[in-house]
Amino acid sequence: MTPSIPKGTRDFLPSEMFRRNFIFDVIRQVFHLYGFQPIETPAMENLSTLLGKYGEEGDKLLFRILNSGDFLSEIPDSLLQEKSSNAVAPFVAEKGLRYDLTVPFARFVVQHRNDILFPFRRYQIQPVWRADRPQKGRYREFYQCDCDVIGSDSLLNEAELVQIIDDIFSRFRIRTVTKINNRKVLAGIADVIGHPDRITDLTVAIDKMEKIGLERVKEELSEKGISGDSIEKLEPILMLKGTTHEKIDILKGVLSSSAAGLKGLEELEKLFGYISGFTLTNGVELDLTLARGLNYYTGAIFEVKSIDEAIGSVCGGGRYDDLTGVFGMPGISGVGISFGAERIYDVMTRLNLFPGESRLLTKVLFINFGSREEEYILPVIGALRRKGIHSEVYPEPDKMKKQMNYANRKEIPYVVLAGEEELRQQKFTLKDMRTGEQTPVTAGELIKILSE
Amino acid sequence: MTPSIPKGTRDFLPSEMFRRNFIFDVIRQVFHLYGFQPIETPAMENLSTLLGKYGEEGDKLLFRILNSGDFLSEIPDSLLQEKSSNAVAPFVAEKGLRYDLTVPFARFVVQHRNDILFPFRRYQIQPVWRADRPQKGRYREFYQCDCDVIGSDSLLNEAELVQIIDDIFSRFRIRTVTKINNRKVLAGIADVIGHPDRITDLTVAIDKMEKIGLERVKEELSEKGISGDSIEKLEPILMLKGTTHEKIDILKGVLSSSAAGLKGLEELEKLFGYISGFTLTNGVELDLTLARGLNYYTGAIFEVKSIDEAIGSVCGGGRYDDLTGVFGMPGISGVGISFGAERIYDVMTRLNLFPGESRLLTKVLFINFGSREEEYILPVIGALRRKGIHSEVYPEPDKMKKQMNYANRKEIPYVVLAGEEELRQQKFTLKDMRTGEQTPVTAGELIKILSE
Repeated sequence: MTPSIPKGTRDFLPSEMFRRNFIFDVIRQVFHLYGFQPIETPAMENLSTLLGKYGEEGDKLLFRILNSGDFLSEIPDSLLQEKSSNAVAPFVAEKGLRYDLTVPFARFVVQHRNDILFPFRRYQIQPVWRADRPQKGRYREFYQCDCDVIGSDSLLNEAELVQIIDDIFSRFRIRTVTKINNRKVLAGIADVIGHPDRITDLTVAIDKMEKIGLERVKEELSEKGISGDSIEKLEPILMLKGTTHEKIDILKGVLSSSAAGLKGLEELEKLFGYISGFTLTNGVELDLTLARGLNYYTGAIFEVKSIDEAIGSVCGGGRYDDLTGVFGMPGISGVGISFGAERIYDVMTRLNLFPGESRLLTKVLFINFGSREEEYILPVIGALRRKGIHSEVYPEPDKMKKQMNYANRKEIPYVVLAGEEELRQQKFTLKDMRTGEQTPVTAGELIKILSE
Repeated sequence: MTPSIPKGTRDFLPSEMFRRNFIFDVIRQVFHLYGFQPIETPAMENLSTLLGKYGEEGDKLLFRILNSGDFLSEIPDSLLQEKSSNAVAPFVAEKGLRYDLTVPFARFVVQHRNDILFPFRRYQIQPVWRADRPQKGRYREFYQCDCDVIGSDSLLNEAELVQIIDDIFSRFRIRTVTKINNRKVLAGIADVIGHPDRITDLTVAIDKMEKIGLERVKEELSEKGISGDSIEKLEPILMLKGTTHEKIDILKGVLSSSAAGLKGLEELEKLFGYISGFTLTNGVELDLTLARGLNYYTGAIFEVKSIDEAIGSVCGGGRYDDLTGVFGMPGISGVGISFGAERIYDVMTRLNLFPGESRLLTKVLFINFGSREEEYILPVIGALRRKGIHSEVYPEPDKMKKQMNYANRKEIPYVVLAGEEELRQQKFTLKDMRTGEQTPVTAGELIKILSE
């Protein structure tokens, strides 16, 4: 009987860890470069914090923690007899695992509002848990990497997030396009086609443009009770072509009767103004079909696609005007983005973009020839480590073949052999594992060569 | 109503995160220096993996995850009517949160044995969860930092772990003493006093020496049915004085009739032989009163105490001969240590040992004077970031006082002022926040100064 782990979860071997940590390290470095600071929240939150924030479907996907001790004692007998899990659940579980980083962050901001300096530039890189049906590329435990600025309305924040996206993906060498839209523009469109109350239906439909095409989107809108007249007004907007500047100009005409729409266009214009002043590696474009599912976005919305791998978005986010209202602190505006580390990992693996050598791997292995030789090599190993050189000594005098195999499999680039002969000559034989070349060196030379 | 988090859990603000990450980074750096490689395991394990591994008390402290969906459906009606939480628990929860890193690691080794290179030098830094009663310094979610070598009997592994301990605590500037003992020596003592089957009682009693003193330990042993004769034989061993070498010599006489005892002494002698060849910053000593609670240790045992703060041990570990047997892979020997990050944090805070400045903090803030000035400063900020200098621009043209307050509270050492006058002169005013000194500089000079 081989032990196993819960479905949808994963172990990570060292080779995977080095690659995952490369991704997290790059993201963290860039966040720091732009003045973002880390926070962490507990894996468990009170269910009162989590429930009702992710829709009915989300509530079902929460992992709940069974209360400690006599967890059945709080259940009314009548409920227990009905055997209704839904009715009983609130009595046996008070806590749940974090489902995303956004709701815990909102809770954090309200709880610590007196200790936080606004505008607050925070990032958070932690795992989240969802009881989703596991499938290829979808896990029940996965990391999110979020950065947000809250307490500032300025569009400079949006502009800097676009820079951060560009900076991070160019370090990964992933070619991307960042798609930008604005929820106010979408609201404006809903206004002018005469269905201001149907913005959700509209954005859901627009979101499907890429997947199902214009005709089926029109059908779906019709099924949802949008009149043919309104759909006709919508069509030219969905099919809009030209430069960003041209598109915005045309839209100004179409949306001239909608205050929200015009405000959204003004925001887009200002944001693209900032962006045109930046030197970016990857593309950025206005995309009116971009809607994003989450209802709490109120201004700019972002989505980043990999150009060379069709894998959905590798980063997304937007502006929200009332993240913390649900916890009793209304009117705090913020904007944030979230990087999909798991997808980035997949793209980098498929395109072979990970750096070949990790600076964290062991640089040199000393072969073990026995006690006398150990005594001879240990001080040199100590000296190498004091210089910051990752060094290992094989722990026992096993067969040479086994020790060399260890060096090979661990991809250690240098091996030192110091047996009887070397000891007599007070030297060390340094073997370059890539070329096979063996060189006799003194302790000083060894340290010098490996320090390079 | 202010939102809150479950008792025994914590949020971490940026100031705490910088300090916690300093601790984790140092530990990780040293682990890499000695050739250890990272792994990670999921937060949730199957309860079949966890149950029965931590004793009856441990089983009670596991956080269990409620099964998804209709979790009541599997419970036999008869059990439900009895309302016995203990009997019902296995039917409503199949998964639990990780309680430590050792059992998941054992499971990992067995599960991935064909992908692992032995001797396997792994480290793991992840949170664990325990439904302990929360109290000062004890949390329900906390990090463990473990490193282990498995698949090698060599005492050189023990010796290297002692070096790692010394290396890590000297980087923290925490003065420590590493106490070393050997379980075989303890078994030998149990042998010669005629109670080979009472080794657990004996080690528990010895473990209390420091806390309750010789007389009460003798009383407790007597209460546990150890004869006066045996206690008399034990007393000189407990009171042993002298250098490590002297102690071992005396013990060789006392334990001459115990094969296990002599083997333990031979191991200690070899280990202290290695240690005497190292240049260590902190003290290492043989301590026969050291027993450590966990039953799976079979050879060397370690415990590290802070000299300047009485806070229990800050690191501990030992040699185990059968970590993976319980998962069907017997006879794999290993040795490992675990660093208590939470206690290290407390010691460093109380002794004020954290480095004053974090290299991760923002180095320069550009004051925002409005759109025209933004256009003037943004390219310079871009250039600074390309040089790796952590830079921020205040996102909106707020009152100067508010912006300067932001820089002060975020401990940003430099502020750049570039208003109308600077723009006209094509200069920037650089303010050193520590001295208050203001200097007019060109863009090139600014980059040069901040790069230093």
